[in-house]
Amino acid sequence: MNRTPVAAVGIVGVSGYSGMELARIVAGHPQLALALAISDKWAGTTLADHLPIPSAGGALVVRPQKEATAAAFAGLEIVFLCTPAEASIALAPVALEAGARVVDLSGAFRLPANEYPRWYGFTHARADLLPAACYSMPEAGASGDIRSARLVSNPGCYATASTLAALALLRGEIIAAEGIIINAASGTTGAGRKASEDFSFSEVDGDFRAYRVLRHQHTPEIERALALAGQPPLKVTFMPHLLPTRRGILATVYGRLNQGKTAADAAAAIERFVAGKPFLKAAKPDAVRLQPIVSTNRVLLGADADPERGVAVAFAAIDNLVKGAAGQAVQNANLMLGIEETTGLLNLAGSAP
Amino acid sequence: MNRTPVAAVGIVGVSGYSGMELARIVAGHPQLALALAISDKWAGTTLADHLPIPSAGGALVVRPQKEATAAAFAGLEIVFLCTPAEASIALAPVALEAGARVVDLSGAFRLPANEYPRWYGFTHARADLLPAACYSMPEAGASGDIRSARLVSNPGCYATASTLAALALLRGEIIAAEGIIINAASGTTGAGRKASEDFSFSEVDGDFRAYRVLRHQHTPEIERALALAGQPPLKVTFMPHLLPTRRGILATVYGRLNQGKTAADAAAAIERFVAGKPFLKAAKPDAVRLQPIVSTNRVLLGADADPERGVAVAFAAIDNLVKGAAGQAVQNANLMLGIEETTGLLNLAGSAP
Amino acid sequence: MNRTPVAAVGIVGVSGYSGMELARIVAGHPQLALALAISDKWAGTTLADHLPIPSAGGALVVRPQKEATAAAFAGLEIVFLCTPAEASIALAPVALEAGARVVDLSGAFRLPANEYPRWYGFTHARADLLPAACYSMPEAGASGDIRSARLVSNPGCYATASTLAALALLRGEIIAAEGIIINAASGTTGAGRKASEDFSFSEVDGDFRAYRVLRHQHTPEIERALALAGQPPLKVTFMPHLLPTRRGILATVYGRLNQGKTAADAAAAIERFVAGKPFLKAAKPDAVRLQPIVSTNRVLLGADADPERGVAVAFAAIDNLVKGAAGQAVQNANLMLGIEETTGLLNLAGSAP
Amino acid sequence: MNRTPVAAVGIVGVSGYSGMELARIVAGHPQLALALAISDKWAGTTLADHLPIPSAGGALVVRPQKEATAAAFAGLEIVFLCTPAEASIALAPVALEAGARVVDLSGAFRLPANEYPRWYGFTHARADLLPAACYSMPEAGASGDIRSARLVSNPGCYATASTLAALALLRGEIIAAEGIIINAASGTTGAGRKASEDFSFSEVDGDFRAYRVLRHQHTPEIERALALAGQPPLKVTFMPHLLPTRRGILATVYGRLNQGKTAADAAAAIERFVAGKPFLKAAKPDAVRLQPIVSTNRVLLGADADPERGVAVAFAAIDNLVKGAAGQAVQNANLMLGIEETTGLLNLAGSAP
Repeated sequence: MNRTPVAAVGIVGVSGYSGMELARIVAGHPQLALALAISDKWAGTTLADHLPIPSAGGALVVRPQKEATAAAFAGLEIVFLCTPAEASIALAPVALEAGARVVDLSGAFRLPANEYPRWYGFTHARADLLPAACYSMPEAGASGDIRSARLVSNPGCYATASTLAALALLRGEIIAAEGIIINAASGTTGAGRKASEDFSFSEVDGDFRAYRVLRHQHTPEIERALALAGQPPLKVTFMPHLLPTRRGILATVYGRLNQGKTAADAAAAIERFVAGKPFLKAAKPDAVRLQPIVSTNRVLLGADADPERGVAVAFAAIDNLVKGAAGQAVQNANLMLGIEETTGLLNLAGSAP
Repeated sequence: MNRTPVAAVGIVGVSGYSGMELARIVAGHPQLALALAISDKWAGTTLADHLPIPSAGGALVVRPQKEATAAAFAGLEIVFLCTPAEASIALAPVALEAGARVVDLSGAFRLPANEYPRWYGFTHARADLLPAACYSMPEAGASGDIRSARLVSNPGCYATASTLAALALLRGEIIAAEGIIINAASGTTGAGRKASEDFSFSEVDGDFRAYRVLRHQHTPEIERALALAGQPPLKVTFMPHLLPTRRGILATVYGRLNQGKTAADAAAAIERFVAGKPFLKAAKPDAVRLQPIVSTNRVLLGADADPERGVAVAFAAIDNLVKGAAGQAVQNANLMLGIEETTGLLNLAGSAP
Repeated sequence: MNRTPVAAVGIVGVSGYSGMELARIVAGHPQLALALAISDKWAGTTLADHLPIPSAGGALVVRPQKEATAAAFAGLEIVFLCTPAEASIALAPVALEAGARVVDLSGAFRLPANEYPRWYGFTHARADLLPAACYSMPEAGASGDIRSARLVSNPGCYATASTLAALALLRGEIIAAEGIIINAASGTTGAGRKASEDFSFSEVDGDFRAYRVLRHQHTPEIERALALAGQPPLKVTFMPHLLPTRRGILATVYGRLNQGKTAADAAAAIERFVAGKPFLKAAKPDAVRLQPIVSTNRVLLGADADPERGVAVAFAAIDNLVKGAAGQAVQNANLMLGIEETTGLLNLAGSAP
Repeated sequence: MNRTPVAAVGIVGVSGYSGMELARIVAGHPQLALALAISDKWAGTTLADHLPIPSAGGALVVRPQKEATAAAFAGLEIVFLCTPAEASIALAPVALEAGARVVDLSGAFRLPANEYPRWYGFTHARADLLPAACYSMPEAGASGDIRSARLVSNPGCYATASTLAALALLRGEIIAAEGIIINAASGTTGAGRKASEDFSFSEVDGDFRAYRVLRHQHTPEIERALALAGQPPLKVTFMPHLLPTRRGILATVYGRLNQGKTAADAAAAIERFVAGKPFLKAAKPDAVRLQPIVSTNRVLLGADADPERGVAVAFAAIDNLVKGAAGQAVQNANLMLGIEETTGLLNLAGSAP
């Protein structure tokens, strides 16, 4: 059926939430074959011991982190790094030198070097890699040519939802560049798989609160993504909240309504923005919700405006682990390999509830 | 111990979520005695059949809605109406004519008559009662003298959280009056007790979405409450979201930072605002959360600011059924009776989680 | 790639939870093509308006219930009925007469006629269809030859989990036939999609309780399924509980330990039972949980025993909407069509969480 | 009003879930005064910084664990230990020697010494204290005279729910002593307040599973509690499950129906059992649920039977932190002090939801 050669890929950090999701998506992808999976937690067991991956793929034996070496990466076309930022900074060069291309899902390569101390709390040890790193959010823009890029930086989950909602309004000239406020809420898997009292069920269930108030690292990433998408430089206010649910992000984006624009203009801007973008779908504002997009690579987008109060609002809903991480990583890998962008990504589950 | 006479009160709509909460609070209140409870759903059974109300109070037999008559209200000092707005409009005059004072928990008496068609979808049948209705949010302001008021309009849940957070920043001159954006999220009990597919567990769990986008009836109420609190007339953007939890509201309020103001100024404004207000408590922005306030009459408030982006944010967390409904109703009743504002409201439960 | 002809199928009741799940599975199935979808709720819209079904499949326009006629069913190889039992009893003959084969997901054809008044509360209007109806739980047994059956009765969700767990212990001769107790718990989607105060988020969240105590209609179905699986007639005690989650069933099955049997014997019985059954997987008792099986057709099974107390226990976890409904229906359809049993069912989502 | 002297009490481990709940209850208790609160986590802050405790009580400054000394305990009438079992074994003698009486909420003093290695995994370091330790579950029985006991062992949460449900059937001679099976499910706070991946929101939400299968330490405690309640020695099978909720336990207890007994007999046995016990309340089997008892010291009990299958079932619902821990501890303290058993326990919150 499909004569394109199958690309061998590896996943480092396969036992984390993004890694698990990525393994699931790769297992169903007709042109990717998982040849290496790395995780200390699962080392020595097979993928099928942990994930519903049938047949061949599931038999792969997971290897420990210390085997994330050039020798292990040799022969892989793409290595996906589902590792913390500082681990990615150490591993990316190893994979690149082994001849593999890299898709990094962490924040390691998303910002200019000078932003790391403030937003990530460390000085970037491999700032030399940043200029060539291709940040790519397919529906918005990229910092280079992804088809030839060796190192691709996959966008953050909040940044994806926030950028797409804001961009739809900005492209439609519905709102001003100044004063954009992004109120976002995410499920708990966004924080990764870990032992933490703050993320224990007893503390999160029945609760809702903001966190990293006015200092979340996706703030400059959203600003950069909007610039890469062709917008003039601007500043956004970004406020994440923690939802008592596992998966999904809703970004509620407020902007100052341009003179003469209406609710109908805002809705039309969404329609124009989603046109021709296979993963984007327009919906009424109160139908932009989490259930229909969980486990899928889809983005629901909607907008409204109140001329009396001079404000427009756009909503975006995504699955933080799929469109916000593993799904978008495969979408980027598809683009890197020159195959159809949607390959392996349209039939992911996701019927509600 | 307490020589103040005990006031006989009645609750119409006792089987709804606000009514149940109110019955619980009244049962533990040393100076209120529940003498009438009305609900078709529970008619003929005792309160103790449904609620953990000990001894005397629990033995009260609930009467059907049709017995909400002047005869039934006679002799009561206060009648609490936990009924839909249109039912309250019909019942309030009956109670007033029977000589009782009324605390209405619906939206029936919160706005000027001309606002009802737009925001509530009906023409007010008893607009004659509105001028004398005393809207009272004790920590913000009131539209009259509650000590002598016969008809008291109890604030809405969203309006309470939103007004207090915005007011703290406005009083502190931290933000401008223009461009206030209130992003709020509520648990499901805010929608009342009812059969509805949209509010079924299968649809709400794992979900998050906005609703009544740019047309929620608490928008003009917040604007009015801020005016009653002494602020010049202003317009706010208010956006409610539905949380997958039962109880609690978090309001995240954004404003345009006044020149020269800092994060420290914002925090100080909160401290000044809560000073001397027994139910208000200042907290760090990410500690303003739902768990600690659920089942209590308390309000957690916090604030921060980003001078680089010219924005300040304030957070308020309340229990929608207590401070947002039944608790504030008792607080208002205390003021009406001239007794200590906190009577019966300090020992409500609420240790987390 | 696949030269087997594709079978045209229809779904009646596509907007219910089982129907939605079935549409999702059929959309990804290489040898089924959805040619008819019926639902009053979605009539006139396309499947893609509601479900993430790409391309051709998504464009199908849903038709109203009144169009569930012989004319509409003509040309379909299989009609899936995702309708209440009494509707299925009316519709199955229509589809059969139109030449289609039927897979019914309701309880309409699961029991002998004389059991309906007691367990379902109605007299069966088409008892004549019952003898030829083929009840089929592929890993346990069937009441006829599914390859030639015209009317297939798909098992109930609780019955599937309960039967498989009990059967593993019975086949292994770990427990006696007498005194089996099945304590089961299900997510809310098992109750269907509907407006109901009892199933509202406010009532279910934070709650847990039994329901239909000692009178649930899956009791005789489990007893019949065990008999069809080759066990001597026996009676089971079945007790369903409602979990505050959307999807998944855990059956905890207790039996009286046969003399001399141990915990190791119980575990070995599970291993033998799952061998060669592609959807069954053995796990340690405390690893039989809901998250890994949600959205998949898989069954996790585990067992243990306490000789001192003379008891063995087996656990089974399934997704009530997939293995407990739509997935097993497709598994049965595969068997009806003579194609590989797992076709279209192995790559369903389901990585935790 | 109340002329009984107020008893000074202390809480060690006040920042844990049981400790927090205990502080809340003591704060509202007219005859207990919290004079010492110990927790490393909260050391140096006041109780009011963490809990909604008004006025005097809230001003108490929490002291670090190292100050849990005889000097600190001197002058206290009762010390509540909300500490892990091994810490309680070390602390109880210190408090006793300081002249205080002790209520221990851990498992440290619930079993004979020889049971500790098997069920708790350690050898009891102060087995000498066990004979005089008074295990007291007021509605069932006690191992000594609580009015004079110096060291009181407060029952476990599961043991409380399980024992009361089983005892109601046994006392009513509804079921045989042999073959009792207790299927129980608890909210996450039963596991305490801690960082743990297994108890993270991402792992628990949407999940349900058994744990400590056939080896939970409440098994022998239930057997002992039934013996203390006057039953002949018997063995029970106890199976705990983890619910995706924070608070509450439902015990579903199955027994072999005695000859000639009916469902009506089972219900009548419940009615007789609850008569005269102020915290127990009979309900229909499917009304024994968690929401109405959360945050209260109440127990809902119900029962049914199926003579055809020879089985009876009883249900008990409690709040694991109140009747299953802090509430029962205060109930025991009331009995120790010779005051009314219900003092300070009737007005706890708990209206649903």
